[in-house]
Amino acid sequence: MNVLITAGGTCESIDSVRHITNYSTGRLGSVIADKFASENATVTYLHGSGAILPSGKNIKTIPIYSAHELLQKLENLLVNHQYDCVIHSMAVSDYTPQTVSSLDDIVISVVSRLQNANASIALTTLVKEAVLAAGSPPTNSKLSSNNANMMVLLKQTPKAIKLIKTLQPATLLVGFKLLSGATENELYQAADKLLVQNGCDYVLANDLTQICGDTHKANLIGQSGPLYTAQTKQEIAEIIYKAVSQTEESQ
Amino acid sequence: MNVLITAGGTCESIDSVRHITNYSTGRLGSVIADKFASENATVTYLHGSGAILPSGKNIKTIPIYSAHELLQKLENLLVNHQYDCVIHSMAVSDYTPQTVSSLDDIVISVVSRLQNANASIALTTLVKEAVLAAGSPPTNSKLSSNNANMMVLLKQTPKAIKLIKTLQPATLLVGFKLLSGATENELYQAADKLLVQNGCDYVLANDLTQICGDTHKANLIGQSGPLYTAQTKQEIAEIIYKAVSQTEESQ
Repeated sequence: MNVLITAGGTCESIDSVRHITNYSTGRLGSVIADKFASENATVTYLHGSGAILPSGKNIKTIPIYSAHELLQKLENLLVNHQYDCVIHSMAVSDYTPQTVSSLDDIVISVVSRLQNANASIALTTLVKEAVLAAGSPPTNSKLSSNNANMMVLLKQTPKAIKLIKTLQPATLLVGFKLLSGATENELYQAADKLLVQNGCDYVLANDLTQICGDTHKANLIGQSGPLYTAQTKQEIAEIIYKAVSQTEESQ
Repeated sequence: MNVLITAGGTCESIDSVRHITNYSTGRLGSVIADKFASENATVTYLHGSGAILPSGKNIKTIPIYSAHELLQKLENLLVNHQYDCVIHSMAVSDYTPQTVSSLDDIVISVVSRLQNANASIALTTLVKEAVLAAGSPPTNSKLSSNNANMMVLLKQTPKAIKLIKTLQPATLLVGFKLLSGATENELYQAADKLLVQNGCDYVLANDLTQICGDTHKANLIGQSGPLYTAQTKQEIAEIIYKAVSQTEESQ
């Protein structure tokens, strides 16, 4: 079985030293990679630059930095290699910096446009354009720390998961849904939405409040509903392997 | 010699999963800690939660998370312990999230205030207050990813370095200045400013573009001007130890 596993988090640069990231360590992805490798799968591990690496020796590891870089690398891998299964556990940033400015820049931009306003432009359009025009794109140098404040406007990143079934309709896709403090029903509904919208075969649903130390409660949901539950990362790796290998065998 | 070394970076939360941080690994701080420990100094290593730890066994390590937590822990240490020297290499975030909103929230807030404006309020004040009022403080839950954008307003964090000489005027203070793509003169001037403003005895001046793999060019600047240069992290640790131990001996 040829498996592609994504793990860890992405980093979205504000400037040459500052970035927005998330708390993903890649530990779950590394445990899943080791489980599949131990079952003789050929594993490619596409991971955020700071992620924990699997300990298995025959796993090919590929680091990426940002959501944009993930998209490029993922496309390249999916175009050039056929995977039986893609396990997309990476915590991809939903947002990336679009512009950076100070609060004063925004105020000056809005006031200046108001004062020179053409009566035919709607006020909402004018204010929105003024806010957008106030900022500069993220920079490769270090922004000064002298301003009393900094405004970072973030835009949505493209959904990497959408690429997977688009480029490889036949691959088995395992998606991940992480919420925080959700009810069981909310989590199930969010997982089901991910499953339907991105053509996942399975979604691992978990909640931040249920992850602590060795405990990592999760539900694996298939296209016909909940399948298996797990209490630890090792058990999560096992239920994913079980579901994937059973589906592979039945095909 | 009793030495307090800060190292690594801080994390500033936007919500329960997203945060702003920097690229500091703590490697330089860990090398400095090991150098001082190898010279029989008593070392306390106050570090960002993900920082590289020194390998020396008798070093007390204390993790902190945010700039706010650093300030609390630093104050506590400086009030309760006397240090001969404080080496403040930590990359403390200059900014922390104050409010988070969508671009639409900001536009709605500004437009609504404009439409209900009291003629006596200056337009700049009105727009500024409207932008500030549009956001909510950082949250302990996970913000939805459904908005097309997210606006994060960051405010300056208090300067932890200012606390050091305020609470322990007699300690030797080594500050760090990191720029990116600066000329030698710009870097020297920035280091000198840090030295004067925060009562540093020494400032290590370095530039991101001069740090690559094993190479880490730096200048140690004292109150009478440049003192020593270094080409690697190990050499940086050595010149700092040299300057500090010579000053200690002469006192």
